[in-house]
Amino acid sequence: MTIFEKIVLGQIPSYKIAETSEFLAFLDAFPLREGHVLVIPKEPIDYIFDLPEKVYVDLNLFAKKVAHAMDLAIDCKRIGVAVIGLEVPHAHIHLVPLDNVGDINFTKPKLSIANERMIEIAESISAQFIKL
Amino acid sequence: MTIFEKIVLGQIPSYKIAETSEFLAFLDAFPLREGHVLVIPKEPIDYIFDLPEKVYVDLNLFAKKVAHAMDLAIDCKRIGVAVIGLEVPHAHIHLVPLDNVGDINFTKPKLSIANERMIEIAESISAQFIKL
Repeated sequence: MTIFEKIVLGQIPSYKIAETSEFLAFLDAFPLREGHVLVIPKEPIDYIFDLPEKVYVDLNLFAKKVAHAMDLAIDCKRIGVAVIGLEVPHAHIHLVPLDNVGDINFTKPKLSIANERMIEIAESISAQFIKL
Repeated sequence: MTIFEKIVLGQIPSYKIAETSEFLAFLDAFPLREGHVLVIPKEPIDYIFDLPEKVYVDLNLFAKKVAHAMDLAIDCKRIGVAVIGLEVPHAHIHLVPLDNVGDINFTKPKLSIANERMIEIAESISAQFIKL
């Protein structure tokens, strides 16, 4: 079972942003910036381009809605997107608040953000999401 | 007019991979790796998440097909995705052949690849695309 399946099942805790029957958005536990979100399909398919067409389309539409919520909740120029997928074999889209190109460099050390602040960030994005 | 509109119009040359009435895929002139492709809507909308829903969906489906062609043409583990958009104000998806996470670090110096090799790479991806 992938770590993301365990998050979907609640076996591993996460800072959830938004959830549907098919998709989940939650804060990356190893963020490049405050408000770095992961968006995943609940079905554990490894490679994003192997997703069935409808799931791929709906995942991207769900990510678009999450990105809009992030734009409203977070002070940044825009939301960047990355799909790498060499580590966890379960498709995931990174949504990262950007002010410059270095904000989305995955070779950088990750941030360590206090639990209380992670809760606050997740709630602020989630509060915007439910209004969309 | 953005540099990408000039590429669409043929006013600036590019190494084209695939084209529809709405979208264009071509080699990034400043590649992170051989076979680094840009996928754009022809309509010059700056922020990808501002695209109308149908254009956004169709752009992502076009990118999926281009990524499959790249997987067939290029020796790499998978195709990574990035949308940053802080430089050219015209939405564009980067598709980058990946073997490790550092392959998609935009703060790295870009490669300089000979014209003949760029033509060869574009033709090899394009030849796979038309079979899909």
